[in-house]
Amino acid sequence: MSVEIQTPAVMIDLDIVRKNIIRFQSFADQHGFKVRPHIKTHKLPKMAELQLEAGAIGITCQKVSEARSMVEGSDQIRDVLITYNIIGDEKLSQLLDLADRVSLSVVADSTAVVDGLSKAFAGRPKPLRVLVECNTGADRCGVATPDAAAVLAKYIAASDGLAFGGLMTYPPVGGQLHVQRFMTAAKALIVADGLAVGTITTGGTPDMMTANRNPVATEYRPGTYVYNDRSLVARGVCSWKDCALTVLATVVSVPAANRAIIDAGSKALTSDLLGLTGYGHVLGRDDINIDQLSEEHGRLVSDGPIGLDVGQKVRIVPNHACVVTNMTDFVHVVSASRGLEVWPVVARGKVL
Amino acid sequence: MSVEIQTPAVMIDLDIVRKNIIRFQSFADQHGFKVRPHIKTHKLPKMAELQLEAGAIGITCQKVSEARSMVEGSDQIRDVLITYNIIGDEKLSQLLDLADRVSLSVVADSTAVVDGLSKAFAGRPKPLRVLVECNTGADRCGVATPDAAAVLAKYIAASDGLAFGGLMTYPPVGGQLHVQRFMTAAKALIVADGLAVGTITTGGTPDMMTANRNPVATEYRPGTYVYNDRSLVARGVCSWKDCALTVLATVVSVPAANRAIIDAGSKALTSDLLGLTGYGHVLGRDDINIDQLSEEHGRLVSDGPIGLDVGQKVRIVPNHACVVTNMTDFVHVVSASRGLEVWPVVARGKVL
Repeated sequence: MSVEIQTPAVMIDLDIVRKNIIRFQSFADQHGFKVRPHIKTHKLPKMAELQLEAGAIGITCQKVSEARSMVEGSDQIRDVLITYNIIGDEKLSQLLDLADRVSLSVVADSTAVVDGLSKAFAGRPKPLRVLVECNTGADRCGVATPDAAAVLAKYIAASDGLAFGGLMTYPPVGGQLHVQRFMTAAKALIVADGLAVGTITTGGTPDMMTANRNPVATEYRPGTYVYNDRSLVARGVCSWKDCALTVLATVVSVPAANRAIIDAGSKALTSDLLGLTGYGHVLGRDDINIDQLSEEHGRLVSDGPIGLDVGQKVRIVPNHACVVTNMTDFVHVVSASRGLEVWPVVARGKVL
Repeated sequence: MSVEIQTPAVMIDLDIVRKNIIRFQSFADQHGFKVRPHIKTHKLPKMAELQLEAGAIGITCQKVSEARSMVEGSDQIRDVLITYNIIGDEKLSQLLDLADRVSLSVVADSTAVVDGLSKAFAGRPKPLRVLVECNTGADRCGVATPDAAAVLAKYIAASDGLAFGGLMTYPPVGGQLHVQRFMTAAKALIVADGLAVGTITTGGTPDMMTANRNPVATEYRPGTYVYNDRSLVARGVCSWKDCALTVLATVVSVPAANRAIIDAGSKALTSDLLGLTGYGHVLGRDDINIDQLSEEHGRLVSDGPIGLDVGQKVRIVPNHACVVTNMTDFVHVVSASRGLEVWPVVARGKVL
């Protein structure tokens, strides 16, 4: 590459991305469930297009503003699920606007949220699809029991402007047995009430290659799989060669024999540990631990000589890919066919 | 306030900011040292102007792009210290441009960095001021000994296009005795070599109110003091009423009696712990622990009933104010005299 890339830089290997997308889509096709990738990992309309072209039925977003920026960024995005309780007049107003433009679904885990959605969508010709969010062990949002899911499903179905769309969960890693039991029980109760359960959607990259253990689910929402990261290598889900996102950094100081400082700190790599020790993996240097980050400095230490010089570049697989793309206004996308391109991270920072 | 502020939102109380700025400036004036605030905390040209109007002699930045955006954002910023080893042709080129516009100083801790600066600035009428960065116990960047500082000072003074500007350190909390000893010894060696030590600059909000214990230092670079945060309250440096930055969040789910979920996750509060337990303090609710963050969800737990309703708003003092302002494109600034204003975070994400 003749262009000097300024560091720290987030680099994306598009050829690895394509392989990651196709691998999971093929698995899903083989086992007969749909893929609806969570775009929180890449935040890029063009990356969503690659996922849709491979066979994804739509995208998942977490916030209304995120969905909006993705839809505005690509004509190919026509089906969006927002896996969040949407609250407040301004957000509901934006949701209405979005519903005019794409096939839209959201989730709810309380009557308070359903009431807000219903008030906004009442009287409109096309009802908003609302899925019941279920807690299958992550203890974040979600109704606690299949009975509660059935009660809320009926409540949604009876609400003006809304249609009951199915069940959604974001399970903890290894929570598939719980998902299967919860969703099977909830579905039976809801069907007994005379309602159809259109979609049962679950997610999580760590368990995606055993998604067939949840035959009750019709849809999977993987996010990180598109890039992978150090947390997934540590879980044995992938290897370094499957990691499409790396942070390119420059050594700015070698102040001791076993220590080097790079120009990527928590503003590039983030403080996310995800249960790991250290803040990332320096490719090709298993001996190095990134043991400390400040905002603009990363500290690399080794038991032996660090063997790096000022000005030298290193490539780092971060602990958590999704949060890294939220730190940067653009990513450097490299592929064999197209060379180096700079893509703006369109949905970065869309927390509203 | 009649305007509904969409959450999560970063709120700044400008009246508290003014008090924080004046408190430290008065202390510095009383003890006869200069203040050069680190703008990494606010990233706002207008906030730097308040610091300069109160008596600061200039600003500190960590990266060239950060300095550039601050200088472009305010005519009042005429003196900038970049406390970073600047490496690479593109960054050096931007440094040259910046040196034409403001009184500029940088740091270096190796001959490799000095050589790069010298190559860029050689032959220019106005030399670049370069301070030697010293390691006084933080074990990040910096020369290891006073002897090494003196050697590098001579090397800078003998380099084309550069002028030796003094000594800089970022000490660990409680490292003031070490700073005083290191800087006194280094200064004596450098003066014995016939060089003047123009500036001796140290920093760190936690120890700023005892900066007079480092009489050898001529300048202090506080950053977080402008907003304060939970880490500083935990250290006993300030109280909640001194915290100018809070994150306003909305409860989106109350899925269990002792648990509530808010719409601020690690994309608003960040995963920075700074040695603390939990991810922030809910004002007025000492019983609540923010025990888990995912990207868009924060989990609030209490030993007793959580006592929050869906739609209710909470205000959170984050663990670390500086990193929070790096997550958001704008902040909501409130003051008694001016009401509510929205300020773009001009130097957000400037990591180059």
